[in-house]
Amino acid sequence: MSAPLDFYFDFASPYGYFASLTIDALAARHGRAVTWRPILLGAVFKITGVQPNMHQPLRGAYLGRDTQRWARLTGAPFCIPEVMPLNAVHASRAYYWLAARDTAAARRFAKAIYHGHWAEGRDLGALAAVVGVAATLGLDGEAIAAGAQEPETKQKLRDETDRAIARGVFGAPFIFVDDEPFWGNDRLGQIEQWLERGGW
Amino acid sequence: MSAPLDFYFDFASPYGYFASLTIDALAARHGRAVTWRPILLGAVFKITGVQPNMHQPLRGAYLGRDTQRWARLTGAPFCIPEVMPLNAVHASRAYYWLAARDTAAARRFAKAIYHGHWAEGRDLGALAAVVGVAATLGLDGEAIAAGAQEPETKQKLRDETDRAIARGVFGAPFIFVDDEPFWGNDRLGQIEQWLERGGW
Repeated sequence: MSAPLDFYFDFASPYGYFASLTIDALAARHGRAVTWRPILLGAVFKITGVQPNMHQPLRGAYLGRDTQRWARLTGAPFCIPEVMPLNAVHASRAYYWLAARDTAAARRFAKAIYHGHWAEGRDLGALAAVVGVAATLGLDGEAIAAGAQEPETKQKLRDETDRAIARGVFGAPFIFVDDEPFWGNDRLGQIEQWLERGGW
Repeated sequence: MSAPLDFYFDFASPYGYFASLTIDALAARHGRAVTWRPILLGAVFKITGVQPNMHQPLRGAYLGRDTQRWARLTGAPFCIPEVMPLNAVHASRAYYWLAARDTAAARRFAKAIYHGHWAEGRDLGALAAVVGVAATLGLDGEAIAAGAQEPETKQKLRDETDRAIARGVFGAPFIFVDDEPFWGNDRLGQIEQWLERGGW
């Protein structure tokens, strides 16, 4: 089996959410797994000097329209959360703490965070809210709350974000097929073709 | 016949170039014409506070890779011009002067500018270069050179750019199907579906 795809995303990104709904199945059709790697785009934007899309004049309004249109077209459950952007630091740390112990649980947790924020519109910025999501999955909320605050967990999230920047990630979702970079939920079609053909 | 699609683009944008290769045929499949409207993204970026993609850290390198990959996939003739970004002011003015007199000639001229810059890699920023392209199409270079410098022509380009900003245009290509906005060459598939279904 070839190397897993690397799926970089920020829980605050709606396009990362859309990609999260289909990327595992897409990869599986071509015998590939996917490594999910939440990062903090805020750190990336400090390098690129770019404002988050939703804060850019003109673009912010379009973003709401485009995401809702995308959701209607694909049938993805979606709403515009009241609190944006999500502060994803606790959710991302909790993810990495879980992923080091149980990758399947971490994957379910990531999907539940995305669903809670982008399908139900909940603000999951607080650690307590993150732990609450984990608890609904039958995970040990107390252990996760403690684990998310361990220095090694915090460092892991920083390392993943730094590594993403070093690989050229400037937005989300950002997906590597081997070393080939694809930016954006709207490149999933090309990723499928890339996997089919082995590049072009 | 329904209203034409509005196709906003900057001659300096490679994604506008890719869209220009297919948008007329796409619209025609659904009984629609397309009104081509070159604008100057520089004026738009003053509003949005965004740097041109190719000047953004990390994103610039990806842009070259993504455009070349797109070209290989679609078979579009393409190269990375030595001089970027193109100063499209003269080409855009010449376009509008022509379009007020002969829309078919203006369309051929716009395609020739795009081809010269993005397929042949030529710097077409100077008025003399723009006139040279027009001359190869059998158009009256002298009249175009004079017309491009008329105050009404300059004002027309400013008006079109201002109107684009008023309609929410923040990048290129930007396409309106009636009043529905679509940003990016990678939304052409959705535009086709929108025309097929009459929205969703």
